[in-house]
Amino acid sequence: MSEKLSTQPYKGTRDFYPQDMRLRNWFFGVIRNVLETSAFDEYNGPMLESLDLYAAKSGEEIANEQTYNFTDRGERRLAIRPEMTPTVARMVAGKMGTLNFPLKWFSIPNMYRYERPQRGRLREFWQINVDIFGCDTYEADLECIVSAINILRAYGADKSMFTVHINNRRFFNDVIAAIAGTDTEGSRKVSKVIDRKNKIPREAYEQELMALGLSEEQIERIDALYRMNVMDATAICPDSVGSQELRQLFDALERTGLLEYCMFDFGIIRGLDYYTGTVFEVFDNAPENNRAMFGGGRYDNLVGLFVKNAKISGVGYGMGDVTLENFLYTHNLVPETFGSGVKVLVARFDDVPYETYMATVDALRNAGIVSSVYLGSKKFGKQIDFAAKDGYSHLVIIGGDEAAKGVVRLKDLSTREEDELTLAAAIEKLK
Amino acid sequence: MSEKLSTQPYKGTRDFYPQDMRLRNWFFGVIRNVLETSAFDEYNGPMLESLDLYAAKSGEEIANEQTYNFTDRGERRLAIRPEMTPTVARMVAGKMGTLNFPLKWFSIPNMYRYERPQRGRLREFWQINVDIFGCDTYEADLECIVSAINILRAYGADKSMFTVHINNRRFFNDVIAAIAGTDTEGSRKVSKVIDRKNKIPREAYEQELMALGLSEEQIERIDALYRMNVMDATAICPDSVGSQELRQLFDALERTGLLEYCMFDFGIIRGLDYYTGTVFEVFDNAPENNRAMFGGGRYDNLVGLFVKNAKISGVGYGMGDVTLENFLYTHNLVPETFGSGVKVLVARFDDVPYETYMATVDALRNAGIVSSVYLGSKKFGKQIDFAAKDGYSHLVIIGGDEAAKGVVRLKDLSTREEDELTLAAAIEKLK
Repeated sequence: MSEKLSTQPYKGTRDFYPQDMRLRNWFFGVIRNVLETSAFDEYNGPMLESLDLYAAKSGEEIANEQTYNFTDRGERRLAIRPEMTPTVARMVAGKMGTLNFPLKWFSIPNMYRYERPQRGRLREFWQINVDIFGCDTYEADLECIVSAINILRAYGADKSMFTVHINNRRFFNDVIAAIAGTDTEGSRKVSKVIDRKNKIPREAYEQELMALGLSEEQIERIDALYRMNVMDATAICPDSVGSQELRQLFDALERTGLLEYCMFDFGIIRGLDYYTGTVFEVFDNAPENNRAMFGGGRYDNLVGLFVKNAKISGVGYGMGDVTLENFLYTHNLVPETFGSGVKVLVARFDDVPYETYMATVDALRNAGIVSSVYLGSKKFGKQIDFAAKDGYSHLVIIGGDEAAKGVVRLKDLSTREEDELTLAAAIEKLK
Repeated sequence: MSEKLSTQPYKGTRDFYPQDMRLRNWFFGVIRNVLETSAFDEYNGPMLESLDLYAAKSGEEIANEQTYNFTDRGERRLAIRPEMTPTVARMVAGKMGTLNFPLKWFSIPNMYRYERPQRGRLREFWQINVDIFGCDTYEADLECIVSAINILRAYGADKSMFTVHINNRRFFNDVIAAIAGTDTEGSRKVSKVIDRKNKIPREAYEQELMALGLSEEQIERIDALYRMNVMDATAICPDSVGSQELRQLFDALERTGLLEYCMFDFGIIRGLDYYTGTVFEVFDNAPENNRAMFGGGRYDNLVGLFVKNAKISGVGYGMGDVTLENFLYTHNLVPETFGSGVKVLVARFDDVPYETYMATVDALRNAGIVSSVYLGSKKFGKQIDFAAKDGYSHLVIIGGDEAAKGVVRLKDLSTREEDELTLAAAIEKLK
């Protein structure tokens, strides 16, 4: 091998050096703590799944285009998971008879999407997945939204920094039908145009709606929905189940004091074929980054892909690590250091038997103190340099004199203060 | 879709339901705690790497056969990582000028190998990787072995359950040359036969060695090495650097009281082209499972695949989750429950406003108590069944009467005892 290999990670993926990893462990630790305290149970599944799982949910073409997929030697079509929902639906379906519903589940898997890397989007990313299965009513929607709010609050975010935008897909369908006077198929066509509202020019938008038979006045009434609050919007079709669900959810948000984090937003649709009830997206309120960070909603019958006549509805959301990290940096919510900060290097001198150092570090570790002997034989000055550069807070120094006296010198690297004391006393001081 | 999808995970991979995940989080938590307290720093890298990385280390054929690999749309040959060493070598090479050596690094990545699933071997597994870079002397070898012993001890394993078998590749080469009287190339050929000793019949083994010019007496002297202790074995070639390294390491193990966990074993070779100094394997001592669980050793210059003339040696090991879990089960080292066990379900009655329950669970969670409101509207008996089946330890009951009096009833589900008290008092009791 005369040609040297590249040290760069694969396009759209990241190396996590120790300093990056400390950030990530803190980052995921906050999430895990909020979700575990809220009695969500963690699960995980394989990185490789049958490609059919994604084709069944999103269509063959999208599954093929957006995933890393290949055929194994047994002619199985596999994909590296691009999302967790098909996996969790498969797992729920696999033990449907023995699981204790309602389930409150979460996972923090890594996954791959085949797309052009850009700000907020990488090919390898982690996604916090939170789902509740087997509770059809608003309490589960509320619990999901509460957990998202609590995660952001646990990072120190307040209501000025983010807002949960909420809509309902049943309401969406019903209010379109009410305004446009269309039947199911007609409403579906109108919905498809509305879903693309922000992606096409205004003129094209109006023309397409008019081609479906809508008048200017009807288009204006749809426009008005984007500026309405939940009471006015749902008053257009008060008998719609979607309207009742929206009012029930907003009523609960108000009564639990969470409405200040939330707003009704008719613009939240989240794809036409998947969600069936409440849908929501959490927006970053920072002017320079004002956009949806993550979202989710209620979906019915994903489990039905696996089990005939199974009717288990779910509600959940997926939160990507890259977007969430951007949010934390934007709002200065990332601490400068992680952990207690006590980290002890036992300096090493060649004239003291090595077992002295090993016994010392063993005692420190048994007391739960992060510690290491300096590995190798370098001058003391080099060992101090190493300790300072590696985030050590203290040195334990045992030279020939200290070893003879049965003491250690404990040096605080921030204050430069030094004490001579017994190892037991040093351990007490460090704790 | 009339054909239903399979609920089985892909061959050789596992689903981790919440009860499995609790075991895994405990399992990895023990390891992480030992390694972090020993001042090892965690890192991670991408699941996908260039296939060239594995081809450069293990040869094109093995890399192709043993990995899941494919070509992306940019004609890049990619593999799902089958091991972590090439990734960590790439990362060290990538920041060689700024990293603070010696490095003590660990990672707990998931990885894939394309092989037939069998006991202890799956296609998807997790592997704890521990490495020290930039310390060429025995202290780093010792630190690696100590960390492995400490991990097993942290699970409650004692010296009766496992033994660290240790050899040295330099010693191996030198003692073969000393006994066989061969030059470098001749010794290499002899080594290749010895490496296959347990895989071929005794007769074939002897014939192959004789074909290389060894006498019966020389073969017997090699046989004798397998029964020797470290002093006798190294006495055959006392001037070998390998002999000196072995004696130094065993001396340090003895003086630090760890020799009772270790033994010299000439049978430990671990592949011929990779390791260059100390090699070791940790054996399960259980008669029904007496075999190597994991191992590692010193390797030179992996970083040289990336950076010209780079000379950074490493020593490390990789510990697979499947094998280690087998060990823990074999020796009854898996606890029956994980965590504190306090988990509170707030029962829900339709005649009490839902915000009462939300405020109650919010107070419990803010006090760090794992808790949930029962999601949905079911009879009280059903809610108790749900709680019992889901590992809840307590119920907080607020019916119309309690709500009116401003109290809660706290029910301990194991003793069936019930107290009426304020929420604040209930929280104190639960903490």
